[in-house]
Amino acid sequence: MSTCRPETEEFDSGFDLGSSGGAAKKYSVVNLKQVLLLGIVLCASSVAASGQNLAERLGYAPGTKLIIVHADDLGETHAVNAAAIKAIESGAVNSASLMVPCPWFPEIADYAKSHPDADFGLHLTLTSERVYYRWGPAAPTDRVPSLVDENGYFYHDWEQNQRVDAKDVEIESRAQIKRALAMGVRPTHLDSHQYRLIMTGKDLFDAMLRVAHENKLPVFVTRDWFADHPYLQESLSPADIVLDHTVTIDPEVLPEKWAEFYIKALTNLQPGVTEFVVHPGFDNEELRAATRERSTWGAAWRQRDYDFFTSEEFRKILAQQNIKLITWRELGHRVAAK
Amino acid sequence: MSTCRPETEEFDSGFDLGSSGGAAKKYSVVNLKQVLLLGIVLCASSVAASGQNLAERLGYAPGTKLIIVHADDLGETHAVNAAAIKAIESGAVNSASLMVPCPWFPEIADYAKSHPDADFGLHLTLTSERVYYRWGPAAPTDRVPSLVDENGYFYHDWEQNQRVDAKDVEIESRAQIKRALAMGVRPTHLDSHQYRLIMTGKDLFDAMLRVAHENKLPVFVTRDWFADHPYLQESLSPADIVLDHTVTIDPEVLPEKWAEFYIKALTNLQPGVTEFVVHPGFDNEELRAATRERSTWGAAWRQRDYDFFTSEEFRKILAQQNIKLITWRELGHRVAAK
Repeated sequence: MSTCRPETEEFDSGFDLGSSGGAAKKYSVVNLKQVLLLGIVLCASSVAASGQNLAERLGYAPGTKLIIVHADDLGETHAVNAAAIKAIESGAVNSASLMVPCPWFPEIADYAKSHPDADFGLHLTLTSERVYYRWGPAAPTDRVPSLVDENGYFYHDWEQNQRVDAKDVEIESRAQIKRALAMGVRPTHLDSHQYRLIMTGKDLFDAMLRVAHENKLPVFVTRDWFADHPYLQESLSPADIVLDHTVTIDPEVLPEKWAEFYIKALTNLQPGVTEFVVHPGFDNEELRAATRERSTWGAAWRQRDYDFFTSEEFRKILAQQNIKLITWRELGHRVAAK
Repeated sequence: MSTCRPETEEFDSGFDLGSSGGAAKKYSVVNLKQVLLLGIVLCASSVAASGQNLAERLGYAPGTKLIIVHADDLGETHAVNAAAIKAIESGAVNSASLMVPCPWFPEIADYAKSHPDADFGLHLTLTSERVYYRWGPAAPTDRVPSLVDENGYFYHDWEQNQRVDAKDVEIESRAQIKRALAMGVRPTHLDSHQYRLIMTGKDLFDAMLRVAHENKLPVFVTRDWFADHPYLQESLSPADIVLDHTVTIDPEVLPEKWAEFYIKALTNLQPGVTEFVVHPGFDNEELRAATRERSTWGAAWRQRDYDFFTSEEFRKILAQQNIKLITWRELGHRVAAK
């Protein structure tokens, strides 16, 4: 998704979510090239366009740099749960979102229940992404027919022009929230796995937003995305929280340049609230097997994210750059207090 | 389930599937004590009672000892898939059954599709057994209401007196077979995870048998179980394959006595066809986490099974005792040829 890339990093628009081998298939990501490109432009321009950034509107001094260090995909595998919990407990990661339909959700729900102060949102999940390890909806499969394949799994991903019914999105999103609440999770925000509910058009974004409003939960949206997806701005009201920027690493970054990418992003960070979307995981047998059809967001990738964000280097640069941490819970409280 | 225990092994009827810690709960297994006790008696008596054992009826010479070395629970975790595949490819295990509703089923289905000669049955699965790692039905949850809890998962296990609708069992069993066939699996037999469709009464067994007959698949049943569950014999016809015995290790065997248990079982093996129900798995992070609420059928247990059945000791004793291997596929062919 949109990325505030370090300005000195060379940008390559090629983006391959697929690789060969076994039953693996190649999946395309709609418009990612444009989204990534746009992110770069907007990182520099969005503050000027809006007058005040989110931090200022929440009462912070001009120039304040706040970040949410947000782990994605909790519940997907044990390797991701274990790494995320360790990163959270070390203070390296301060927010995360949970994939309710995934097999390891009960493990992370149990943790969430016994750690009610943790800043956990729900990572609304409508695709099963992987090839050898899959899951289906929380709602009955026959209630969400446009979301499932002939075997009852979520589609790996959505093809361009695939018809996804907004009604099914609402039903499934509500089912995921209902299950999370029933299992003791008290979410602080919603976001969307693989950004599918952000980037697939107004109908699906509106469905997500309706469910979010019903549950009084903020949705992860950043102004970086408005120019490419104008319907986001059209649908949001002034009462909705909109972040200023987001940073996530992209597949063109070489493994040995991982830390350099993040250090540059932190050094060049714009004022306002930025969510770092990170994917900690342990590079072990389970995660290697679960992600083996392609290297993007794979086991080694996730280990590199874990290693950087739990490093002393990361802590140091936060201090050096006077970057403060903020959570979705704090954002919610500040907005409520306004 | 019923077990031909080595005669010299001391028998302790205590059986605990539960342990404390976290969200773990204690689950009882209906009548397991009686079933285990009965197995011992029947191991000595069932051949005499029926006149001819299955091996003889299939044309083998009197006294022939045939075993199926059958790995259970494929598809449940990657650690189980990986260990089972290695055990199968080394020749140590010659048959297995797959859990269709489980998250790692796509991995083993892909293997089955590319290894059409492998002797894979379907391990009909109507419980989710574990606490931190769970799954639900292959059928839409609203079509099988008596099988799922309020969150759409299969129940961990069935309580005594829990009402399970035989219609739901049929719907779900058909859905599992349909998904397996659609994903390229050509099953050679059916069996039942945690023996739930064997030991929960005539209605559920008959439901399983109807689905098996529709699909022309044999069901794993042994004469060892008839005295305790007379409805099995009542429901089966002479055309159904009925094994003579089964051996499975029980929770009272100490880890250091693991090999000794199996060696005694093989040394004291009765003539006829015996299924060894084994649970190979790798004792790694994933399996330890998935099974951590109790040690029974846990990661270390499964590693011990893997270690024994892939050992040189196991191969040697088969040769010493003149024990031959047979698969469900071969049984099916021999029955069809009669």
